[in-house]
Amino acid sequence: MKTILTGDRPTGKLHLGHYFGSLENRVKMQYDYDTYILIADVQALTDNFNNPEKVRENVRELALDYLSVGIDPKQSHIYIQSLVPQTAELTVYFSNLVSVPRLFRNPTTKFELTQKQELFGNTGESITYGFLGYPVSQAADIATVNGNIVPVGEDQLPHIEQAREIVRKFNNIYGDTFNEPEAVLSDNPRIKGLDGSEKMSKSLNNCIYLSDDDETITKKVMTAVTDPNKIRKDDPANPEVCMVYYYHKLIKNPNISTVCTECRNGERGCVFCKKELARNIIEFLKPIQERRKYYEERPEEIERILKEGTEATRKKAEEIMKRVRENMKLNYFDE
Amino acid sequence: MKTILTGDRPTGKLHLGHYFGSLENRVKMQYDYDTYILIADVQALTDNFNNPEKVRENVRELALDYLSVGIDPKQSHIYIQSLVPQTAELTVYFSNLVSVPRLFRNPTTKFELTQKQELFGNTGESITYGFLGYPVSQAADIATVNGNIVPVGEDQLPHIEQAREIVRKFNNIYGDTFNEPEAVLSDNPRIKGLDGSEKMSKSLNNCIYLSDDDETITKKVMTAVTDPNKIRKDDPANPEVCMVYYYHKLIKNPNISTVCTECRNGERGCVFCKKELARNIIEFLKPIQERRKYYEERPEEIERILKEGTEATRKKAEEIMKRVRENMKLNYFDE
Repeated sequence: MKTILTGDRPTGKLHLGHYFGSLENRVKMQYDYDTYILIADVQALTDNFNNPEKVRENVRELALDYLSVGIDPKQSHIYIQSLVPQTAELTVYFSNLVSVPRLFRNPTTKFELTQKQELFGNTGESITYGFLGYPVSQAADIATVNGNIVPVGEDQLPHIEQAREIVRKFNNIYGDTFNEPEAVLSDNPRIKGLDGSEKMSKSLNNCIYLSDDDETITKKVMTAVTDPNKIRKDDPANPEVCMVYYYHKLIKNPNISTVCTECRNGERGCVFCKKELARNIIEFLKPIQERRKYYEERPEEIERILKEGTEATRKKAEEIMKRVRENMKLNYFDE
Repeated sequence: MKTILTGDRPTGKLHLGHYFGSLENRVKMQYDYDTYILIADVQALTDNFNNPEKVRENVRELALDYLSVGIDPKQSHIYIQSLVPQTAELTVYFSNLVSVPRLFRNPTTKFELTQKQELFGNTGESITYGFLGYPVSQAADIATVNGNIVPVGEDQLPHIEQAREIVRKFNNIYGDTFNEPEAVLSDNPRIKGLDGSEKMSKSLNNCIYLSDDDETITKKVMTAVTDPNKIRKDDPANPEVCMVYYYHKLIKNPNISTVCTECRNGERGCVFCKKELARNIIEFLKPIQERRKYYEERPEEIERILKEGTEATRKKAEEIMKRVRENMKLNYFDE
């Protein structure tokens, strides 16, 4: 059985963008793969190093989101990165297998530097050693569970390419040790925001969170962008521009063709259409929110799941480290 | 009791330069400090990553050298870096507290890049991420045992300054956790080579190793540089230039003033003087080589010492990591 590694940084609640961009797929895949789901607290610290409280709070929040959407702890190991120190060991060993200029050429790192000028300076001149090494520790995450498959968004492709290079180099120098991981792109890599932006994103304040209550959802949906060209009642709305149409389609409204026809024929107003969408999203999120409620009332169960997931990951990581130490000739007392 | 961290990279046998430059002092200090002696195999891999056999062989060799000179395993914990994974964890956390340009400004890193052009390119353009981060992992070594005192050579001062900066920053952000380590310079930071070079160094092929046999020592001493200006029998030799005089003094020949006077008065020839020096060095190394023989015949004892030293270090490191995780809010299951 092939091994999947996925995960998120615990820096905020998950939203519909996460759900349709990756969570839905993870829930499906967990039955066919040995699945490890990483709560990347150490990576979250690379640009939140001065805000450890934020990271901590979001670890349990993220676990709650995972369990809510249907990640099944019997199928998937949900684990906390900082509690699997083998990842840090591999990060250190991998550090010798990649050059500094190669890391600076990583396009995702370049892009993210432009996004984090407050932390790393206008020209990235204060970039930390840890942030530059983000792809190295991501390679270590994958190698910690010897992952084959890494479902990612497009922006993470350069990091996976980097991970493949590192793993290949390791295997060349020290002998065959790790699988070369493959990136698998999601069908819906980017989910648009309520405001019509290309990406639903916390920082753009255009999200519907998986944990939003009914009233909040309704309010937010009422702000969704519709086709600005539809100024007269009988103008047809462009469903590619209208976010209401977009979300109807996303959550698989079975009457989507009716919605469309009615809209084009001027038989459905935007307010009516938004109210229907809000009801549907609330309906769609109901089982997710019911599971959330179940776990929110049972924090000891979340703790048990995180402990067991972390323990299982450590066990797998230790098996892999045994091979690493053998191949690197660091197995001093094992002969 | 204050804590000392010292150690070496396992990349070759130790010589008189190491003995008088640092080992002699460590042997003395071990009775007054909680002493940890690091066999830095992970650091040795930063520029020997493609030669793990060399590193491995030298781990036991280095332990043997330590025990020979009188490091007392009852007083000092001799430990293997790769077997204390807490160091890797701290390296990863410290990586966020230092900027890349700061690491490039480190004068020792700059100098070492000029020495390692074969590995990292003529202008250091292939410098690895791991090599650039050498001072970060050195800071982690010190912090792993919460060291107060780090006896070093002059060339290591920039690294200790870097370690102090990192530790200060950590304490500022996460609360008081680590001691700020102090560098202590050796009285004899550099021991001259047989050829008169400023430094006894394997790469200059001008060393007397602690494990050299009598014949080798005698042969090597015969090649020692004497004062080239002493061309006539009655010219006085300059003891600052004559390596024979220099070593007589180093190993504390009680008749040093006689040696000097006789030489100046033309009453002692260089060959005679060298033979006396060789005998004295052999005599000086006798107890060291006897201890070496004892341990060479008892590899299981070396193994036990390394295991116990490593175990004691892990225990101390785990205590410190407990505080680190508390302060970084990563102690998820400890409440």
